[in-house]
Amino acid sequence: MEQTKKFLLPESELPTKWYNILADMKNKPLPMLHPGTKQPMKSEDLYPLFAKDLADQEMNQTDEWIDIPDEVREKLKIYRPTPLVRAYNLEKALDTPAHIYFKNESVSPVGSHKLNSALAQAYYCKKEGVTNVTTETGAGQWGTAMSFASKAFGLELAVYMVKISYEQKPYRRSLMQTWGAQVIPSPSMSTKAGRKIITEHPNYQGSLGTAISEAIELAMSTPNCKYTLGSVLNHVSLHQTVIGLEAEKQMEMTGEYPDVVIGCFGGGSNFSGLAFPFMRHTIKAGKKTRFIAAEPSSCPKLTRGVFEYDFGDEAGYTPLLPMFTLGHNFAPAHIHAGGLRYHGAGSLVSQLLKDNLMEAVDIEQLDSFKAGVLFAQTEGIVPAPESAHAIAAAISEALKAKEEGVSKTILFNLSGHGLVDMTAYDQYLAGDLMNYSLSDQEIKDNTENLEKLA
Amino acid sequence: MEQTKKFLLPESELPTKWYNILADMKNKPLPMLHPGTKQPMKSEDLYPLFAKDLADQEMNQTDEWIDIPDEVREKLKIYRPTPLVRAYNLEKALDTPAHIYFKNESVSPVGSHKLNSALAQAYYCKKEGVTNVTTETGAGQWGTAMSFASKAFGLELAVYMVKISYEQKPYRRSLMQTWGAQVIPSPSMSTKAGRKIITEHPNYQGSLGTAISEAIELAMSTPNCKYTLGSVLNHVSLHQTVIGLEAEKQMEMTGEYPDVVIGCFGGGSNFSGLAFPFMRHTIKAGKKTRFIAAEPSSCPKLTRGVFEYDFGDEAGYTPLLPMFTLGHNFAPAHIHAGGLRYHGAGSLVSQLLKDNLMEAVDIEQLDSFKAGVLFAQTEGIVPAPESAHAIAAAISEALKAKEEGVSKTILFNLSGHGLVDMTAYDQYLAGDLMNYSLSDQEIKDNTENLEKLA
Repeated sequence: MEQTKKFLLPESELPTKWYNILADMKNKPLPMLHPGTKQPMKSEDLYPLFAKDLADQEMNQTDEWIDIPDEVREKLKIYRPTPLVRAYNLEKALDTPAHIYFKNESVSPVGSHKLNSALAQAYYCKKEGVTNVTTETGAGQWGTAMSFASKAFGLELAVYMVKISYEQKPYRRSLMQTWGAQVIPSPSMSTKAGRKIITEHPNYQGSLGTAISEAIELAMSTPNCKYTLGSVLNHVSLHQTVIGLEAEKQMEMTGEYPDVVIGCFGGGSNFSGLAFPFMRHTIKAGKKTRFIAAEPSSCPKLTRGVFEYDFGDEAGYTPLLPMFTLGHNFAPAHIHAGGLRYHGAGSLVSQLLKDNLMEAVDIEQLDSFKAGVLFAQTEGIVPAPESAHAIAAAISEALKAKEEGVSKTILFNLSGHGLVDMTAYDQYLAGDLMNYSLSDQEIKDNTENLEKLA
Repeated sequence: MEQTKKFLLPESELPTKWYNILADMKNKPLPMLHPGTKQPMKSEDLYPLFAKDLADQEMNQTDEWIDIPDEVREKLKIYRPTPLVRAYNLEKALDTPAHIYFKNESVSPVGSHKLNSALAQAYYCKKEGVTNVTTETGAGQWGTAMSFASKAFGLELAVYMVKISYEQKPYRRSLMQTWGAQVIPSPSMSTKAGRKIITEHPNYQGSLGTAISEAIELAMSTPNCKYTLGSVLNHVSLHQTVIGLEAEKQMEMTGEYPDVVIGCFGGGSNFSGLAFPFMRHTIKAGKKTRFIAAEPSSCPKLTRGVFEYDFGDEAGYTPLLPMFTLGHNFAPAHIHAGGLRYHGAGSLVSQLLKDNLMEAVDIEQLDSFKAGVLFAQTEGIVPAPESAHAIAAAISEALKAKEEGVSKTILFNLSGHGLVDMTAYDQYLAGDLMNYSLSDQEIKDNTENLEKLA
């Protein structure tokens, strides 16, 4: 009998509801605090910044399931449901008894899972009559997603793109412009936050934290404009749960259930999207599954950060969030996985890690590219440098299974492809990339002045 | 009821046989001639250059169906069957009564349909014990496909890449190298053919014709080495028929049958792959369907070329083929659709055009990019500059339907995505691209000394 490689769902199986893990968590995250008053915030307090529906989703602790609007589902059908794939060729190359599956989010027309939330956010903005939106982007995956989503729902978009990525990934800028967005390298002179950091650090290559400050400032000073964000927040993770909900049905088709679920980790969106739907069976039914977030060694908030209140951005415009963080002024090394260069983890993941419902591992840059090239040469798909971190973690689990002589079912999220990141592969193949280490002292310096948790 | 956007086939519906139109053609193409003796060639005469099975397929005029080896089908499953998609959003933007469908070959991990034949060619080479293969590539789509295919079957590959594309599309080079291939810009100093043209034309930016000469020369002078080609030849079109065979089943799922089938046209591989399976119903059952090849105005072999015997390459190493051609020394303008910059059309398509079983249209560069941007903004996928020619032709047909107030079912091949061609879109958006015209005198000068047909 022939082996099935790709497990496909028809469009009729596209989820109709998102899964809201916040409703099921026994220990809810501490509330976000107003940056000025330090008082707990309500969803109304977020209305000036976010579309109302998104702000309400952010704070929703009661509804386990939230309807996906038909208009969003129609657009999701451009690429969803995405395939679940058995990585036979990778298994063979590793000579492992483990079964390795991956959810292939790279088939999205923008090249990553980011479109799942971009379409939802653009829709809710349009629905309340907003005409302009702003956002930031690191590697450019979120920015490209938001560009197409804005075009799809008829919104004008301005994107602040981290300067180092703007230079490393010119094709991303072109993509955003092809979909009609305006792209500004950050830090820029167009905002107070940008001008301040340029003045203080003339050669600053940018960070997601700074780009967020700029995008928020522009949104707050533009009429009929909202801000959108591609990770970290609860509502973003919520929209991403279509990944895990589809994967759950597809794993049923394989006749297996994952022992390990892996996602790379920047702010939490793709990891959460795959993991949360499976985690609900752990929370509610005691199902034994390991959930592993794979972060870069150079930006190790989950493995080496502190758990405190911190800002989501560099300038301190956002609410204070309870998070594992390296400090909002942390400037990560210039690794190519731009989407993972963020100082903090979302509140949901931070709480789940604290409650031992999940684990985290750190991956060196060279190990991530080694894994990425092996994956490209076996499974054909050149992974995004971010996704290569998940692959490296999956390979490590598969090799452990081989060492221990046990079978094991591993599921990871291929959050995106790397076709627009070939400069990074070029440099890796030429031997020009390096690992980056971070001293305990650096982490201490960046985190010792944070707002303490109550 | 919800609209279905993507029509999907399970892996079990992946074709088990290729469709060989040569067996069904009433007028067979004239035989290929030996470049020295001018005598008709047999498949054995091609054995030094091509794997035996491929040479036999090239000459097979009797078998309507040819088995796809299991080893090839296993690798095809990495991305096949590919989706058939209803372009609702494009239809809406055009306000047309036409129904527009496209076969989405861009989901291949190398980004185009080229992998369909690359996997077959690499397999047959491996099967007969070959260790090294050579090829050429224009835009880089075929080269990337052959790079992954060679890695998948354990072959060493050298790719001659047209110099202008090598410079315009650096990411393509990186992709080929990530999959383990050696990439040489053509014309190069590594072959007699390359040295000759460099000497005669010091600033020559290369052409597919020259790159083919170089790849053939390297194959012939390397032990245990075969040459592979991505288009033009019968066996390449044969391998591509998986596209149309799947599309046929998928059109049945829609309840419609195409009135018009469209593919962009360089040497014929993607056009033939989609069109031939539908054309068999025209040949065998008189089904009324229009088949349209969309070629660039700057390289108009089908619409303005002559039908004569000509070489497939610039140096005259290949057999003489009966083809619509602009002359094997024709140096096409530097349009970004590098895959369409080829002087001649394959013998099958040339004969079918002569017999009025199909049509051809020419598309200006600016019209192709305009169509490409509209497609990106509506359907989300940034098309390859080559595929944008097919989109432009489909849009033209859809607008005609609107003008005439008739419904019409249009099917085109989205042969690949343009994520690695963003430089081209950048230049288009900046207003830096232009159309190229070709005078009758230029065509006459290039074609008047060709070998006359018998």
